[in-house]
Order: sequence, then C-alpha cells, then structure tokens
Amino acid sequence: MEKERETLRVWKERVEQELDGVVAFWMKHSRDQEHGGFFTCLGRSGKVYDKLKYVWLQARQVWMYCRLYRNFQRFHQSEILESAKAGGEFLLRYARVAPPGKKCAFVLTQDGRPVKVQRTIFSECFYTMAMNELWRVTGEVHYQREAVEMMDQIVHWVQKDPSGLGRPQLSGTPAAEPLAVPMMLLNLVEQLGEADEELAGKYEELGDWCTQRILQHVQRDGQVVLENVSEDGKELSGCLGRHQNPGHALEAGWFLLCHARRKGDPKLRAHIIDKFLLLPFHSGWDPEHGGLFYFQDADDLCPAQLEWDMKLWWPHSEAMIAFLMGYSDSGDPALLHLFYQVAEYTFRQFRDPEYGEWFGYLNREGKVALTIKGGPFKGCFHVPRCLAMCEEMLDALLSRLPPDSDPTSSPPVVPTPRDAK
Amino acid sequence: MEKERETLRVWKERVEQELDGVVAFWMKHSRDQEHGGFFTCLGRSGKVYDKLKYVWLQARQVWMYCRLYRNFQRFHQSEILESAKAGGEFLLRYARVAPPGKKCAFVLTQDGRPVKVQRTIFSECFYTMAMNELWRVTGEVHYQREAVEMMDQIVHWVQKDPSGLGRPQLSGTPAAEPLAVPMMLLNLVEQLGEADEELAGKYEELGDWCTQRILQHVQRDGQVVLENVSEDGKELSGCLGRHQNPGHALEAGWFLLCHARRKGDPKLRAHIIDKFLLLPFHSGWDPEHGGLFYFQDADDLCPAQLEWDMKLWWPHSEAMIAFLMGYSDSGDPALLHLFYQVAEYTFRQFRDPEYGEWFGYLNREGKVALTIKGGPFKGCFHVPRCLAMCEEMLDALLSRLPPDSDPTSSPPVVPTPRDAK
Repeated sequence: MEKERETLRVWKERVEQELDGVVAFWMKHSRDQEHGGFFTCLGRSGKVYDKLKYVWLQARQVWMYCRLYRNFQRFHQSEILESAKAGGEFLLRYARVAPPGKKCAFVLTQDGRPVKVQRTIFSECFYTMAMNELWRVTGEVHYQREAVEMMDQIVHWVQKDPSGLGRPQLSGTPAAEPLAVPMMLLNLVEQLGEADEELAGKYEELGDWCTQRILQHVQRDGQVVLENVSEDGKELSGCLGRHQNPGHALEAGWFLLCHARRKGDPKLRAHIIDKFLLLPFHSGWDPEHGGLFYFQDADDLCPAQLEWDMKLWWPHSEAMIAFLMGYSDSGDPALLHLFYQVAEYTFRQFRDPEYGEWFGYLNREGKVALTIKGGPFKGCFHVPRCLAMCEEMLDALLSRLPPDSDPTSSPPVVPTPRDAK
Repeated sequence: MEKERETLRVWKERVEQELDGVVAFWMKHSRDQEHGGFFTCLGRSGKVYDKLKYVWLQARQVWMYCRLYRNFQRFHQSEILESAKAGGEFLLRYARVAPPGKKCAFVLTQDGRPVKVQRTIFSECFYTMAMNELWRVTGEVHYQREAVEMMDQIVHWVQKDPSGLGRPQLSGTPAAEPLAVPMMLLNLVEQLGEADEELAGKYEELGDWCTQRILQHVQRDGQVVLENVSEDGKELSGCLGRHQNPGHALEAGWFLLCHARRKGDPKLRAHIIDKFLLLPFHSGWDPEHGGLFYFQDADDLCPAQLEWDMKLWWPHSEAMIAFLMGYSDSGDPALLHLFYQVAEYTFRQFRDPEYGEWFGYLNREGKVALTIKGGPFKGCFHVPRCLAMCEEMLDALLSRLPPDSDPTSSPPVVPTPRDAK
C-alpha cells in the first residue's frame, strides 16, 4: 500500500507539474491580441507558423481554459478567463458561415472570414462545449442560450434530417455511422447535463441512444471495435468497414464510463472496460516499439492510410484518462498498471523538456516526425484535458487510500450510486 | 562512349524487363470480369482488399493499356485492348454522376454507383485521357467525341466559370491556383494534340496559357517552386503558400519539356531544366537517407502533413522521366547522372522482386510502410508510364549513339525543330 501510495503520488506530481508547463505554453504563445481567438499553428518553440484559425481548436481552447479556471484553484486567474472570453467572442462573431444559420466553418482567416466548411457536426459540437463552459464560468445566459440552441440543431441533423449539413445524396454511399458521431453527442450530453438537472433530464434519452449506438461498433462476436458500422449495427464492406482507430475506441471508452457512472450500472462498466479499454489496447499496442498504432485493419491487412503506423499524442492521452478512470471506478489493479505503462511511454516519447508542451506526431519507432506543437488538429485540448483529468483522478485516489499501511486492504473504489445501495 | 552505351543498355534492359512484370501484375490481378473496369486496391501479392473503383485510376489504367497496345509491339495483344475497352465502357456507363451533366464521381462501387464526388477537375481530366486513347487504338469516333466534349467542359470550368464544380464561395478562401490544374491541362493539350493538327491548333493558345501559369509557380527570385500561388502569380500566406511538392514540380518539368520541344524553344527548355528539374531535386532529395521527400516548406519549417518525410513511388518515377527527358533533349550529362541516381534508388527501394510491381509508400529511412501495391491513389499508371517512357527514351538514345567509340564525340541530342533550323 505504501508503494502504491508512493507511485500514485509521484505520478500526481509529474502530471501536475506538466499541466503547469502546458498551460503556460499556450497562454504565452497562442493568444491573438489583435482579433481575439487563438493561434494554434505553433512550431516547436511556440512560434506561429500559420495564422489560420481552426474552429474545432478555437472552441476546444475556450472550453479548456474555462474548465481550468473553474476546477483548479491555481488556474482561477483573470488572465485565463479573459482569454477564454476573447475566444468565445471570436466564435460568436465569426464561427457561423451564414447566420442565423447554425452551420459553422471548419477554418477561418485570422480576422474571421470562412476558408472552409466541413459537412459534419464537429465544429458545431465544440462550439456548444465552449459556450456551455463560458456560461458556467461567467453566468452570462446568452452563452448558455447559444449552447442549447446549437445542441438542438446538432441533434436535429443527427437524428432527424442531415440535409442542412450539405452532404450530397449519392446512390453508392453506404449509410455508415462513424463512431465519432454518437461519441461526440454523448460527450455533449455529459457536458450540458453536469449539475443541471433540467438539461440532464432533457437529454437522458439521447444519452441512452448514443450509448446503444456506440456499443453497436463492437463487432465480430465482441472481438473488434470498428470505426464505421451501418446505422442498424452491421459491419460494412471493404476498408471502410474494417477500419479501426484504437485511440478513438479508448476515448469512447471513458465517455462511456462517465455514462455508466451516472447510470450506476456496474455491468455496463465491466462491458466497457472489456470492449473499449482492454480490447483496443491489446490490439493497438505496438509489441515491437511500444505506443498505440493510429489505424488498424480488422483483418490485419495493411491499412491504406499513409500514417497508419505513426504514434500520435492524442490516442495516448485518451488511453491515460481511460485506464485511470477504469481503475478509479472498478478498483481493478490491472487497469492501474496499464495506466502506468501508457503514461511512462507517453511522458518519455511525447514531452519536449526543452520548449514545453508535447510533440504530436512520432514515427513507428518513436522518433519525432513533426516538430510542431500545434496545427490544424492539435491545439490546447487533448494534452491539458488529459493532465487535468488525471490530476483530479490521482488526487481523488490518494485521498481515498486508507491512512494505515495494511497490505491486505482492498484497492480504492469510487462508489457509484448503484454500488452504494 | 562504350561505357555510356553499356550503362544505357543495362538500364534499357532493366526497365524493359520491369515493365513486363508490372504489366503482367495488373493484367493478372486487377480486371473485374463481372462489371468491367479494374480493381486497384490490391495487396502485396495482388489480392483485392477493397472493391471500390476510383475513377482517376480506372481512367488511368485504360489510358495506360491503350498506350502500351499502341506503342509497344509486345503489348499489342487483344487481351490488353479488350481490358482497356471494358474499362472504357465502365467509365462511359458510370463515371458521370448525373448525365448528361459532365461532373464525374471520384469513387464508385464495384457495380458503378457513385460513392463520392470531388469538387475538382481531375476525374474528368483522366476520363478525357482515357477516351482519347481509346479512340486512337480503336478508331471509334464516339470515344473521341466524349474526349473533346469533356475537354471543353474542363476548360470552361477552369477559365470561365468554376461554379459547376460545386465549390462554395467563401469570403476567406484565397483565390489559389494549385500547380496541378495548369499541369493537368497542359498534359491534356499534349494528349489531344498528338498527331492531330486540328486539335493541336485548337488548343495551342491554351497550352501557352498553361505554361505561363505553371511558370508563375517559380517564386522568390527563382529560388523555389511553390505548389499554390495566387491567380496573378503571387506567393500566398501561411502553410498553403509555402507548400512544396518536389515530385510534382519534377512531373510539371517533363510536361513542360514536351511543350518546349513542340515549340522548339531551347531557352524555355533551359529554364525548365533549371527550375523544374534541378531546383526541386536539390531541395527535395534527402541527403541522409536518399529519396525525395513528399512535402516541404519553402521556409524550411516543419510541414503540417503527417506524411511529409515519406518516400512515395510516384515522385521517383516522375523524376526518372524528367531527368531522362532532360538529357535526351539537352545532352547535358549531369542530367543523365541524376537519372541514374534516382533510378538506382527507385529500383533498389520500391521494387518487390517477390510478388512484382512496386511498393508505393516507404518511411523516411526507406523501409516499406505500406505493403499494398494499389490503393485509392496508386494504380496501373505512374510505374508503367515511367517504365514505358524510359524504355522508349533509352531506345532512342542508344539508336542515336554514333557507331564508333570515339570518346570525344558529343552526347546525343534530340534535334528540336528550332535547333534543327
């Protein structure tokens, strides 16, 4: 027990210190003082190499700053709040392509003119997360009105009529459901429902629907998680159907764990740990060089994506969250050991002790392939979200350890409502 | 001279033998006997791993088979012609998304239903190449009518009104010209004008326009070739503006050399060799591991594309063509040595002596990253086009070597019309 406490304590300190450095990196380099919002295309040392503003990353950074401001005493700084608000105002002013229409751009110029629009729901989902958090930290209701109205629009696109997204109807396009869609929606249900009984009630059925849709991605008698399945839960043909993304399955895993915790459903929790944590980890971990592959093929064929064998930062940060949450909720020490295994690899390979923040893209062998710290898909999000959540979970675990050193005492378990009965 | 003759002869034999193997690979594995057209998603041994039909690759394979049938006695086989025609019929029946509209799909199901449409001109360009070649080998005029009508549509989209491509007009989208557009059009001018005075005349002005537009991509006082520039030939801001693709510049190089040869313009030829052959080769060749980088940044920053440092087959096959053509047209022995350098690397790293054809995707160090022989972007095109063109050029060079062994005799030069004056 003393050894366990010591290891948890060491990791808690590492994670806490790392979070300080990462937040400082973004606070120093990414704010656009001229137009509001953030630069996210940052080179190794933090220098801006492109001024385009990717809406996913603008909104995620607003969300992240608010979360830090709200949940961490040491980040409860007016500078962080002001930066989040400036990002929020930039989004309010420029994210939508043709207001009052709700469709948001994917990328904007520095001064907010739309460059590209994606025919998906994701810019809008991150917009919703950002607005909800801004309401939580400022109490200004117009942010919450934006969040809820956008959420209603997203649900309409997903469940009723996708035509507003602008995708052409083609006779050969399979009616595929990407895992990202129900995952993202479930994450929004969690976000909007936090300490908000009214919205939690409003979206309860939606949360169950998302969960059921995510679980449909477990295929082949429970042996694989597939990234795309048909809307009625069947495997699709070809590469699209066989496509696997272990990091994404692990991220879905912790979204689902939150849902199972809210529901107080230990049977669901056990299923999630088995299928969305252990399965993708064991299939996706590179036995030769360590780290999670980016993409795999369910028949073990060679994926056709050029980057399939690269090691990206975010599957590793998601795996850290998933295993620590799995351990926190189940008490299974095997999950804690997997957390340590992933965290050791991640801290060793992705951190940049010289300039701060993490490299995002390593080759299969673990060598840095891209020296950038931010780009079109990497911003102030996965790294600090992982560190912040892990710090909170490690704190909670340490505080729950029994004060004595009795080696026979059980591992700590967070009581879920149903367990507690 | 004897040594030069011997080296040329050895390469001619290697290339000829390799072409035989490559053509046999595609003839054996790719034909869809059921629906016509070709499977191009082929694994290492040639096994189909996905039945989707990418229109670029369908049309390129038709073009390639016709070229082989037309220009090589040993490929003048009814089986090759029949396969090309079956591919052509598949395209005629299914490539267009909404006939009589001319927009073509990017990818079709095995039985020809559209899966995805790109808002660019490239499916249509390859369709035009295929139809023109089918007309050349069969004499059937409906193929040529298809080719010319599609060409007129493409020119309309590029020079008059792009709205038919379906790209939304967004206020922040820079009016960028990708190098691919004038390159592809110049290649079509060459294709349609071959031994056809009427069409050569019709498109002469267009060919000059394309050339002028391609030359605008040489920027910064002639020090770089940029992949995207503004329509009036200025450097664009950010990553888009700094983006470089050395293999693409080299491919543009040999398209331009064909144009300069037709024009009989040795001054233009010298400029092309300098800017589109030597410049991208010297900036793009990896001094550490050999091979051409896929992408680079003109300021030597880290590109944001994950695959930037990979070695792809096609930049190397295009470089082989470019340097051998440059040597054939100029007689500069430095270009022949660059051909040998690239060809040695290419044959050593990309060939698969065990199952035939070439690997397409190596990591920076030259290790095979993807074992596939074909996929969404690799089909029966760059490899056999390179081998066929190099075989023809090596043949021509060998036949022009003086019969004596006088070491003081000049290297062989193909007389261009202006040179011949």
